[in-house]
Amino acid sequence: MIILGIDPGLCITGWGVINYDGFHLRYLKHGTIITKSTDNIGERLNSIYRNITDIVEYYCPNEVAIEEVFVNNNPLSSLKLGMARGAAICSVSVMGLTVSEYKPNTIKKAVVGVGHASKEQISAMVQKLLNCPMVVKDAADALAIAICHAHYNNQRKWINDYASKGQY
Amino acid sequence: MIILGIDPGLCITGWGVINYDGFHLRYLKHGTIITKSTDNIGERLNSIYRNITDIVEYYCPNEVAIEEVFVNNNPLSSLKLGMARGAAICSVSVMGLTVSEYKPNTIKKAVVGVGHASKEQISAMVQKLLNCPMVVKDAADALAIAICHAHYNNQRKWINDYASKGQY
Repeated sequence: MIILGIDPGLCITGWGVINYDGFHLRYLKHGTIITKSTDNIGERLNSIYRNITDIVEYYCPNEVAIEEVFVNNNPLSSLKLGMARGAAICSVSVMGLTVSEYKPNTIKKAVVGVGHASKEQISAMVQKLLNCPMVVKDAADALAIAICHAHYNNQRKWINDYASKGQY
Repeated sequence: MIILGIDPGLCITGWGVINYDGFHLRYLKHGTIITKSTDNIGERLNSIYRNITDIVEYYCPNEVAIEEVFVNNNPLSSLKLGMARGAAICSVSVMGLTVSEYKPNTIKKAVVGVGHASKEQISAMVQKLLNCPMVVKDAADALAIAICHAHYNNQRKWINDYASKGQY
């Protein structure tokens, strides 16, 4: 199963693709989509939309995961984050994929083991778990989201298997 | 020139299409895109995106206008508005159109004459100016945005004409 993790932002959107066979995590690719603050909002959102579409077309993920929103105290920041998030989710939905959302603490727990891990700890654990090259901050978060989805998806599968066998 | 005005919202997105020949405003159509709060965020944003795409394909607007954001005090509301706005702007940008933004007060001034007009005043003036049927609140705002764009666009055209004739 190929999983795409997205960490959206109007300036920098991180993305990461991994493969998970139910036992092993395998790193495929990561990157960032950077938009210029001097460009108009249409061009910036279009850039996020088109880049995510290209990534989906190239890696053909089976599942997509995104961070459930950390609501910023600043309404303007929340609005900008919302627009970037809207463009990213739209891109994925138009391609017929559903998006799973995970809380920041759930993602940190799944990757580092604790809900209040630092960015550096997440980045270090992502590199260790995926045996991948040095990843930049936003892409590390995106890969962490993908890893979290792999774990939770597996958990759901086990529960369903047990339930279908009448063991629950 | 055909102008599409959009008033985005995650629950209700209003839209209105008018024709402006430089002298007369002509009403073409208005409507709302409603999404269910029980649907997941991907389906809701996809619905806004696809409906706006259909409207653009059907009415072939030359220009698109949207309200510059009123930043809500509630960050969660700002985030939801941002996502809807992101989906709407994405849809238009992907179709190769640029989006003009106008402040709420500018729109009210262009339609009613004062910057602090009520919703009812806007709705009444939109009906009067366009000689159109009763419009619902969100669509009235969208038509008001389109009217505002028509006025400002005309103004810009006059200024450019004068400037090119060396009268400025």
